[in-house]
Parts: sequence; structure tokens; C-alpha cells
Amino acid sequence: MTDDPCVFCAIVRGEAEASLIYEDDDVVAFTDHAPVTPGHLLVVPRTHAIGLEDLAEEDGARVWSVAHLLGRALRRSPLRCEGVNLFLADGEAAFQEVFHVHLHVFPRFAGDTFRISADWRVRARAELDESAAAVRAGLAELSPTVQP
Amino acid sequence: MTDDPCVFCAIVRGEAEASLIYEDDDVVAFTDHAPVTPGHLLVVPRTHAIGLEDLAEEDGARVWSVAHLLGRALRRSPLRCEGVNLFLADGEAAFQEVFHVHLHVFPRFAGDTFRISADWRVRARAELDESAAAVRAGLAELSPTVQP
Repeated sequence: MTDDPCVFCAIVRGEAEASLIYEDDDVVAFTDHAPVTPGHLLVVPRTHAIGLEDLAEEDGARVWSVAHLLGRALRRSPLRCEGVNLFLADGEAAFQEVFHVHLHVFPRFAGDTFRISADWRVRARAELDESAAAVRAGLAELSPTVQP
Repeated sequence: MTDDPCVFCAIVRGEAEASLIYEDDDVVAFTDHAPVTPGHLLVVPRTHAIGLEDLAEEDGARVWSVAHLLGRALRRSPLRCEGVNLFLADGEAAFQEVFHVHLHVFPRFAGDTFRISADWRVRARAELDESAAAVRAGLAELSPTVQP
């Protein structure tokens, strides 16, 4: 044991209990201990990162690629799987609870208990254009060389 | 116009109205017309794919990388953004509504209306181990050479 309080780092090091599904040099995948549906798994980078801001681009791409593979694996598994969701929460306001980047992958089927809700209303084009311009302004600040 | 009924393909071709945020040779990003929060955007591959099954691995990685970039851009934009969610729905059972792969990226803030719910209960290790073995069985069918 070390002083590192990150439970996902402990799993990556093999020091905390987990039901492992996949591991390679870059990422580890294991079941969520409180699954939405049986087979709900998390893909995490071995290198600790809190969220999208400090996650190395190549580590993120590896997390995605393994999630892509495991999403397809779920459909071939004996588990009930009529669909798949990928979900990532970056920041407490986005429902992040463990502060080591993790991409959720979970099987879905008719009658499961997962639900999402929001104030989904179709917005006027002018309002959408304004939001698009705002995101582009953020992108310009981040990466002045990207010219969409 | 062509006979292609896919609205995201039409946006990619510039034949349907959209509030564009980013485009390159592989992907296009534009606002969701019914945003969870202002700035809610979708990243889609230019090449039509329905879901994870027929999405080329490299197209998926590009979709992810641009979503990663735009998630970071949202935090630098003038929009309210205290957190970011990424969400992908693969299949009708997973709430997919447009059958051209798309990765949702949306800003979150305290008091927004987005909610998720499920029967989240911590499960016994034996049950989690069984699920993990089932996913590994699916993975073995997909990719016999991958030995986790």
C-alpha cells in the first residue's frame, strides 16, 4: 500500500480488489462495483489523470479504443445486451465521483432501469449558432492554430 | 439532395442546416438541435456508420480525440461549464435516435436539468466476477488473439 488515495490507481497496481476484464500497457478495464446492468465496466488509463484536462491525448484515444472493443464484446457475450452506452463524467457537476478518468461502458436492454432526463427542447437556429460561436471561441483559446 | 435519408450525412455534405463548430477530413462537430445545456454538441464521423459495430476503429479514435478537444474548449468558452459529459448511445435500446454514430459532448453546471437514474446497488464480488468472465467470453469471440 502507498499513500495514494486513488482507488483506481490501486486497482491498476493490483492492490485493490476488482473483477478484471482487460488490461494492456496503457489501460485497465474492470466491472463497476455498482453496475447499471450486469456487464457494466469501466476503462481507465494506467496513468493517473483526473479528467479531460489533464488526460494525455494518446491515453484518451487508448481508453476509447478499448471501450469500443469491449462494447462490441458485450454484444457477443452471454450477457443481455441489446444496446450499449458509453458515458464519461468530467467534474463533480457532471456526476464524476472517482477522480481518475474512467469511461463507462454498459449493456442495455428493454426493461432495464437506466434513464436519462433533461429539458430537451428544440432551440431556434440563432440560439444554436450563438452556442456554436461560443464553443469555437473556447477552441480558439485552447488551440489558436485550429481553424474550423 | 440524394436519396440518403441520414440527416447527419446530409449535414456532413453541407446539405442540411447545422450550427457547425469544427470539421476536418474525418469528423464534423455541430450543436445538438435540442441541447441538454447551451453548447451541447455532437461529433460524428464523415463516413456513415450506424454504431460501434460498423464504425472503423480509426474513425472512432478521431471522434474521441475531437470530443476530448471540444470538451476542453467548452471549459474555456463563455458558456456556463463546470463539468462535461460525453455520452454515446449505440442501439435503440440504448436511446440511439439517429442511426449515424455520434458522440454527445455537453457542458454541465449546478442546477442544470440533466439527470441519470438506475438501480445502482453494490453487487457481491462473485456476481461481478461472473459478469467479468462473460465479457471476456464475448471478447474472446471477437478477438481470439487478445489475451487479457
